[in-house]
Amino acid sequence: MNIVLLEAEQTQSEFWKIENPRQLQHLSQHIQLNAGDTLKVGIRNGQRHLTEVVTISGQHIVLRPIQAEALPAKLPVHLILALPRPKVLRRIIMDAVTLGVERISLIHSYRVDKSYWQSPFLQQLNDYVTLGLEQAGDTIEPEIQLYKRFKPFVEDILPSFISGQRPAYVAHPYAEQQMPYAIQHSCSLIIGPEGGFIPYEVDLLQKNGCQAMSLGNRILRTETAVSSILGRLFV
Amino acid sequence: MNIVLLEAEQTQSEFWKIENPRQLQHLSQHIQLNAGDTLKVGIRNGQRHLTEVVTISGQHIVLRPIQAEALPAKLPVHLILALPRPKVLRRIIMDAVTLGVERISLIHSYRVDKSYWQSPFLQQLNDYVTLGLEQAGDTIEPEIQLYKRFKPFVEDILPSFISGQRPAYVAHPYAEQQMPYAIQHSCSLIIGPEGGFIPYEVDLLQKNGCQAMSLGNRILRTETAVSSILGRLFV
Repeated sequence: MNIVLLEAEQTQSEFWKIENPRQLQHLSQHIQLNAGDTLKVGIRNGQRHLTEVVTISGQHIVLRPIQAEALPAKLPVHLILALPRPKVLRRIIMDAVTLGVERISLIHSYRVDKSYWQSPFLQQLNDYVTLGLEQAGDTIEPEIQLYKRFKPFVEDILPSFISGQRPAYVAHPYAEQQMPYAIQHSCSLIIGPEGGFIPYEVDLLQKNGCQAMSLGNRILRTETAVSSILGRLFV
Repeated sequence: MNIVLLEAEQTQSEFWKIENPRQLQHLSQHIQLNAGDTLKVGIRNGQRHLTEVVTISGQHIVLRPIQAEALPAKLPVHLILALPRPKVLRRIIMDAVTLGVERISLIHSYRVDKSYWQSPFLQQLNDYVTLGLEQAGDTIEPEIQLYKRFKPFVEDILPSFISGQRPAYVAHPYAEQQMPYAIQHSCSLIIGPEGGFIPYEVDLLQKNGCQAMSLGNRILRTETAVSSILGRLFV
């Protein structure tokens, strides 16, 4: 947690109050805050501020904003992910948000277990986003969409995100071209499920404007692939 | 698991046998193997082979090697990590091994809780390495060393790994220079604990030949940083 994220409603008056138990617990565990100390705070989908701690109690911390701070830039990327296993969903969303992904689409794919769409973890996406923003020191939520059917997404939705200036790359172990690096434009990045997309899916993606790109001959877990490819695309 | 890793002793005769319960369970859960199917197998620190399944039972799978296969190349990098929290140690080691790191040093640092050095997870490093190799389709274990004292490591050990052709980069949020990308040489990569190295440590690293390099103004979790920086350094 490198900033504390507050809701806009919490920042309407002269003094702001941290009341969220998770945030209070994190601060008391990891930071020895005293009145007079400064603390970095973000307003969800708003500005970031340096604040001063006015009072601290077990139930809340009262802050006074001192000055606005710059937000970190987003990565101009639309991350399209085959819905990961519930257990890793949290980490992948957190990582993608921390790294600055602008938009996330979670899609179905042949090797995505249908039960994943019923997972209670899917109800907690907002919490994962909050954790990622607090880690990165960012306040702007990415847009997240769920698409439970692969073909309609690829044929009807995906093409609207692709253009000559905005290509779509599918990470695919058996592609001939290498995933590009240090790109200076926006893109969509499509990452399959554990076990990969099936050939029909790769074909359909390619027919609808996507380019299959290899990552060399090591096969990465989804979560490793997300961080590694984003690190390579946007240096 | 993209290959099954066997020990050299298991591959002395004409037929090889998978007997490890973890491996048998993974195969029965994720792959519907039948006699006559092919299976990718690696020999720890040895070759990789395509094999044919001869017989399958609940207790073992018997294989016949068909032909040797190429191993994926390693990344020419020495990853030096402040010992991570036990909970994330497994994932970080797995990721580093999957990505192909040649050598790993786990070091102490001011913000590493001393109790981490007593963690039972440290006894399981070999298992994490095995999982990483099986994920990547690699067989060659990285060298892993533990250094429980920061200063002696930085002053006496680290300099032997640094030269003009082999720089050492410290990931440091407040450095002026940007972490390089697409490098064509080997290097050491040093990543601090959660909360970062303290200024004294960064100074000592720099005095001993390391270069502090920034990753932009997003602060990443250790595990995100490892994959993201490796993805960027070695494209």
